[in-house]
Amino acid sequence: MNILEIIANKRDKKQLSKKEIEFFINEYTNGKIPDYQAAALVMAIYINGMDSEEIANLTIAMAKSGDILDLSKFGKNVVDKHSTGGVGDKVSLVLLPIIASLGIPVAKMSGRGLGHTGGTADKLESIPGYNTVIDIEKFIQNVQNIGISMITQTMNLAPADKKIYALRDTISCVESIPLIASSIMSKKIASGANKLVLDITVGKGAFMKNLEEAEKLSDTMIKIGKKAGIETICVITDMNEPLGHSVGNSLEMIEAIEALKGNMDEDLKDVVLECGSYMIKLAGFGNNLEKNKNMMLENIKNGKAYNKFVEMISNQGGDISYIEDIEKFEKAKYIIPVYSEKSGIIEEIDAESIGKLACSLGAGRMKKEDSIDFSVGIVLNKKMYETVQKGEVLAYLHINDEKLIEKATKELLEIYKISDKLLPTKKKCNIIVTKM
Amino acid sequence: MNILEIIANKRDKKQLSKKEIEFFINEYTNGKIPDYQAAALVMAIYINGMDSEEIANLTIAMAKSGDILDLSKFGKNVVDKHSTGGVGDKVSLVLLPIIASLGIPVAKMSGRGLGHTGGTADKLESIPGYNTVIDIEKFIQNVQNIGISMITQTMNLAPADKKIYALRDTISCVESIPLIASSIMSKKIASGANKLVLDITVGKGAFMKNLEEAEKLSDTMIKIGKKAGIETICVITDMNEPLGHSVGNSLEMIEAIEALKGNMDEDLKDVVLECGSYMIKLAGFGNNLEKNKNMMLENIKNGKAYNKFVEMISNQGGDISYIEDIEKFEKAKYIIPVYSEKSGIIEEIDAESIGKLACSLGAGRMKKEDSIDFSVGIVLNKKMYETVQKGEVLAYLHINDEKLIEKATKELLEIYKISDKLLPTKKKCNIIVTKM
Repeated sequence: MNILEIIANKRDKKQLSKKEIEFFINEYTNGKIPDYQAAALVMAIYINGMDSEEIANLTIAMAKSGDILDLSKFGKNVVDKHSTGGVGDKVSLVLLPIIASLGIPVAKMSGRGLGHTGGTADKLESIPGYNTVIDIEKFIQNVQNIGISMITQTMNLAPADKKIYALRDTISCVESIPLIASSIMSKKIASGANKLVLDITVGKGAFMKNLEEAEKLSDTMIKIGKKAGIETICVITDMNEPLGHSVGNSLEMIEAIEALKGNMDEDLKDVVLECGSYMIKLAGFGNNLEKNKNMMLENIKNGKAYNKFVEMISNQGGDISYIEDIEKFEKAKYIIPVYSEKSGIIEEIDAESIGKLACSLGAGRMKKEDSIDFSVGIVLNKKMYETVQKGEVLAYLHINDEKLIEKATKELLEIYKISDKLLPTKKKCNIIVTKM
Repeated sequence: MNILEIIANKRDKKQLSKKEIEFFINEYTNGKIPDYQAAALVMAIYINGMDSEEIANLTIAMAKSGDILDLSKFGKNVVDKHSTGGVGDKVSLVLLPIIASLGIPVAKMSGRGLGHTGGTADKLESIPGYNTVIDIEKFIQNVQNIGISMITQTMNLAPADKKIYALRDTISCVESIPLIASSIMSKKIASGANKLVLDITVGKGAFMKNLEEAEKLSDTMIKIGKKAGIETICVITDMNEPLGHSVGNSLEMIEAIEALKGNMDEDLKDVVLECGSYMIKLAGFGNNLEKNKNMMLENIKNGKAYNKFVEMISNQGGDISYIEDIEKFEKAKYIIPVYSEKSGIIEEIDAESIGKLACSLGAGRMKKEDSIDFSVGIVLNKKMYETVQKGEVLAYLHINDEKLIEKATKELLEIYKISDKLLPTKKKCNIIVTKM
């Protein structure tokens, strides 16, 4: 086996064999294949594609490149949930305590934010004391004791994926379905689930910019899942404007707490209930999706979901007085209302631009090493298809650095596209289609 | 300007602008773009191609990445000759002294051999004392004094090409017309010619395996030449079997000396005369190709070409007693006749296999750093379409290492494909087509 032949085969649109893929992944992970040969192969994969057999082999080889978590003690049906990323996406924070409150074990490893999208682990850390970095034994113990634990990735999961992901970023090979699909699924296999609900976001704030791509990714994910023994359901959701009304770490945590108390925005509720109803089904807790949704709503209403959330936070060292009194969260120095300069209907609030603006205020990282400011961000007062009068507040900017105020205000006004014409009042539903 | 955008553009089959190409070449040459980003871009170029404008811009940017030789003191029409490489290719050794003997200045920089193809500079060094590494002032002076100088590349010519060529070799991106064409032409531009005869070899021993590819490369070369101000004529020649009868450094030098004395194999003569007649035309010394060929034959007959060769060798320190008495060349320890095991007609003598066999005997380099053994090689006693009787000598192996004899004999017998059936006796001509 020879890397030059493997590169030449993909360059010439040939199918790579299981052995060729394993050879590449193993030798690249252990540093025997240099970055420039991997870069050539990754570009050839980007341009010439891979069939579903190749993608499944790539995924499994990447999963096997590091530790694999064993969650079998939690039964036959261990369900995980993953999102392909978005802006204002606090679904896991709301959804997983609800699921755990129904008696379904939740062992969730989340990523950190990078670029314009946020990360669940960062948002959890906005609660003082909450520890996302705990060892795996303690993690398993937490799930056994209280049915839920949410941490960041501490194990050496899919190191091949880490290397390839970092490389893709530097050679313009991010938006490739075989590479995105194998990246996500390899981590899911390594993190021990055998059932998976994937929230595939589509739109201006997502990796997948149009429905066709999102459906292609979904089909690929489901096929990989079948070959890798992970039953996968894909919920394609809208990510043109931010989800919910807040963007920023503390601000999103506050929104999640409110949602668990029953005050949940409709778009966020759409995604939480849809993904949750499938998680319940996959866990073997009920096949009727409407009934599943009602079970979830019931546990919000009776406080069980909220209590489970408080229990989880407390169990991992978080100061629950912040949850009980959200006024305790440190506020940004300046909370700047941005007023509409015209009357009309909100036509567009580009989620990626909002994410980038929040990031520039300090809510996110440009590079992996950057630290983040929990208090800053953006709270949307108006969302898409709402009417607005000149002088009404569009959004509030939460800013700590005075020098950023003017520029951020100007940018926010540019992001809100307001139409003079009356738009058809669409009943907006954030669920586009579900595939399994 | 940003390398990520440039990579993404070629990945998406877009035309790269002159500025993008210049940015890549400059930043890669000075080390600001790492190999893995260059590898991704080169693979994208390999797969998605380049149009003739992009190739011309790439060629010119590579030429400008280092020194550019000024040969304008030799008049308006400075003619160069280049071959895309072959096995047994001693055309330059024979042709250029003939051209110089007609009063046309010859300032030739040649490469060294790598892999199965030989290099003119190595062959010249088989004459004891001949110095191929001289500085540029002396090189120019030699041409002024005696009308010819042949050296190896001593200047920093097209360093971008050197880097990209080395990279291509490690990422399976050698056989790409935009990359081959720009590589050759950038060096030609940098070495100061404004007229060029290109010998484009095609067949088993050449980079171009079929005529279609060779014609495509020719067309590309001519187009680049037009844009870069180098009038280019491409002579497509056959390289299925080795050219002439000897392969190996001293052996080819001896064949070249014999040829300059008038004992020239027909296939070698085809190529020498065809390329030469166009060189004479481009130099402005005559438009009638048949007359040009006769001028060349005349200067072989009257000894002027041979004398010019002796003068050049002497002028650069070579021991001309070797030319006057070819028996002085150091011989290999073992000269092994290989006898045919059957009677028939020679159907095939794969040039690449012969080149590799000669290389394995020590005549060539596997890696750049390898040293070579001037005396070893192969002398063909039978060539394609000749009849052979069982027991007749097919070829002689010139070997210094006794341990190689058995294996080399076996391999040579396998390389000679002998047909039982009577093949149509083709009148073989090595010139396939000429393009301008």
